[in-house]
Amino acid sequence: MSDHTYKHIELTGSSEKGIEEAVQNALAKASQTIKHMRWLEVTDTRGHIEDGQVAHWQVTIKVGFTLE
Amino acid sequence: MSDHTYKHIELTGSSEKGIEEAVQNALAKASQTIKHMRWLEVTDTRGHIEDGQVAHWQVTIKVGFTLE
Amino acid sequence: MSDHTYKHIELTGSSEKGIEEAVQNALAKASQTIKHMRWLEVTDTRGHIEDGQVAHWQVTIKVGFTLE
Amino acid sequence: MSDHTYKHIELTGSSEKGIEEAVQNALAKASQTIKHMRWLEVTDTRGHIEDGQVAHWQVTIKVGFTLE
Amino acid sequence: MSDHTYKHIELTGSSEKGIEEAVQNALAKASQTIKHMRWLEVTDTRGHIEDGQVAHWQVTIKVGFTLE
Amino acid sequence: MSDHTYKHIELTGSSEKGIEEAVQNALAKASQTIKHMRWLEVTDTRGHIEDGQVAHWQVTIKVGFTLE
Amino acid sequence: MSDHTYKHIELTGSSEKGIEEAVQNALAKASQTIKHMRWLEVTDTRGHIEDGQVAHWQVTIKVGFTLE
Amino acid sequence: MSDHTYKHIELTGSSEKGIEEAVQNALAKASQTIKHMRWLEVTDTRGHIEDGQVAHWQVTIKVGFTLE
Amino acid sequence: MSDHTYKHIELTGSSEKGIEEAVQNALAKASQTIKHMRWLEVTDTRGHIEDGQVAHWQVTIKVGFTLE
Amino acid sequence: MSDHTYKHIELTGSSEKGIEEAVQNALAKASQTIKHMRWLEVTDTRGHIEDGQVAHWQVTIKVGFTLE
Amino acid sequence: MSDHTYKHIELTGSSEKGIEEAVQNALAKASQTIKHMRWLEVTDTRGHIEDGQVAHWQVTIKVGFTLE
Amino acid sequence: MSDHTYKHIELTGSSEKGIEEAVQNALAKASQTIKHMRWLEVTDTRGHIEDGQVAHWQVTIKVGFTLE
Repeated sequence: MSDHTYKHIELTGSSEKGIEEAVQNALAKASQTIKHMRWLEVTDTRGHIEDGQVAHWQVTIKVGFTLE
Repeated sequence: MSDHTYKHIELTGSSEKGIEEAVQNALAKASQTIKHMRWLEVTDTRGHIEDGQVAHWQVTIKVGFTLE
Repeated sequence: MSDHTYKHIELTGSSEKGIEEAVQNALAKASQTIKHMRWLEVTDTRGHIEDGQVAHWQVTIKVGFTLE
Repeated sequence: MSDHTYKHIELTGSSEKGIEEAVQNALAKASQTIKHMRWLEVTDTRGHIEDGQVAHWQVTIKVGFTLE
Repeated sequence: MSDHTYKHIELTGSSEKGIEEAVQNALAKASQTIKHMRWLEVTDTRGHIEDGQVAHWQVTIKVGFTLE
Repeated sequence: MSDHTYKHIELTGSSEKGIEEAVQNALAKASQTIKHMRWLEVTDTRGHIEDGQVAHWQVTIKVGFTLE
Repeated sequence: MSDHTYKHIELTGSSEKGIEEAVQNALAKASQTIKHMRWLEVTDTRGHIEDGQVAHWQVTIKVGFTLE
Repeated sequence: MSDHTYKHIELTGSSEKGIEEAVQNALAKASQTIKHMRWLEVTDTRGHIEDGQVAHWQVTIKVGFTLE
Repeated sequence: MSDHTYKHIELTGSSEKGIEEAVQNALAKASQTIKHMRWLEVTDTRGHIEDGQVAHWQVTIKVGFTLE
Repeated sequence: MSDHTYKHIELTGSSEKGIEEAVQNALAKASQTIKHMRWLEVTDTRGHIEDGQVAHWQVTIKVGFTLE
Repeated sequence: MSDHTYKHIELTGSSEKGIEEAVQNALAKASQTIKHMRWLEVTDTRGHIEDGQVAHWQVTIKVGFTLE
Repeated sequence: MSDHTYKHIELTGSSEKGIEEAVQNALAKASQTIKHMRWLEVTDTRGHIEDGQVAHWQVTIKVGFTLE
């Protein structure tokens, strides 16, 4: 981070496949309306269980983006 | 939570009566502009004191809602 | 707590009415199989939202009981 | 909080009825010796269990008051 | 979570391959004796190192299941 | 805080000079679009290092403002 | 920890003598019903006071054991 | 800290100028009644905002002093 | 804890011998002025090192006592 | 861990591919100078975002190794 | 942070003047032996009190630097 | 702590006898290569269990020492 002001938002993305894809899905959704996203931090990793297996991974992230 | 992307916001509601009503007041205010709220988590419970009694309960919540 | 060994378990109870009743509901369910419960600590207070209002309060507690 | 110095103390109040009343009971006791209490924060919510039910709620609070 | 009582347990699963598989392995083992598991939360991610590489991933999860 | 509903946002401001100025810079930027900011809490204090010195201070704050 | 699944439980043991003995007492009680306990972590150290002295030490531990 | 017993108290000081002065103001007030203060730790840094700027810094500290 | 109001204070005791004695020393000092101490919780365990050995153990505790 | 003394260090590794590979990359780098690494714990999972996607995963770990 | 491996160390610097200078003093000392320091995070802010005033500020930081 | 720069390291020592000896063992090992150790803080207390008893105590400490 250099000489800017950043705003942080918190999102939860989901994926049947794994943790990384759940994060990418949340970013893909957010990038429809937010420009200049710069970094993320994973704050919670959860899963929905069906039939004794993880049906969806649900990963919560903080995302920082530049305020123009 | 199923196969969606969620955004979380943080609000503080207040009530003269108690903790549950302070939460409901925050949700009532937020529902004027936010649709599809799904869950909340209480993150802080405070009170403003006057004359040795709680005059207002002030309850901070995280609210998750679906990004359409 | 005096000169005993305790075991702790974690439960989530729910109620349409409020936080205290959600705790009582969890204890009522647990007391069907666990004797000698002694204390509880609230560790998380959440709610399920429908139509912009709390439909169910969901309160997570740690419960300590005596090992006989 | 404006241009003052505050001191904080930590209290636990109890009630057979609920969380809010346990807080009010702690404040009522403290107000016998402390003036100018301004705010509180709930830091722990516990209960004493008898016969599978909450017999007393025990709520710990931080209280801030103005140093004259 | 809707109108039920849940119990939470804490497990650690392991895998030579990765984090997601360690979680699935823990659930597979637990599902032999526990029915109605609903969600999990990752609370610790560790690894056993041999020859400068991760030999086993060891992932600790909280699992919530419905009390019938 | 009195009888209102507040929303909280998280920002990071930066300054070559120090912690207080980094906070003021974040508020100056945010005040272009947000009215009725009431309080802030510092949640993280970082710095970018160049040539063995702090080149920019980067301070993250939570800001609370009144929902009209 | 190697290639197994572990379950964790939380216990509180007590002793008039000290912290280590309170832990050993909790393990001695638990080992009557649980086999294959492997490690413990101290999560809380408390004491019951009588006449201005510690009458009982009360130490809470997490215990991990192998699921066969 | 050497061979003594210490007591800790928590204070919040305020200043229009900055974090360090808010701490000094809290100590100046406390030193009117407490002798032998030895160290402090900053536990919370907040600010009151007016017109989009920090009007008062409000810094909470723990102070340790020797019990004679 | 039953139907009373408690106040909590924080103390640090020291001992050349060990953790338990440092706690007992803090209680012995506090009991000169405080009656009705009921429980303690260890919140920090530190040591002062001289010549590569622990010269003093310094243990911080929260102590709860009944408000009469 | 058996009868040894361990030292812990904190590292951040990065990878374009995922969390596990970022950890392996950090270990590969560290193993050039550190022998006898035994375990790791993930303490922070971050990502650098470019064009609305995770360009690098950045995973911070604590590593424990035997002091010979 | 881009495509590198970083190591983190923890330092405490001191200053009679203020928080920022205590950080700069720690970095100046560390830069005598460590190259390529990139960022810092403040993890603890303390002060040594003499005559009711802060005699030295003591600020603990985590510093990240590139492993070549 | 006075007007110096300190570095902190994290160690785990072990002992069959108890917590204090595990700390002393870690310091004895570290003092072979590190001079001017000044203080320690216990950050984790664990034990390895064999036959339902603690076979080794494993205590993790942060140690601060003066940078000359």
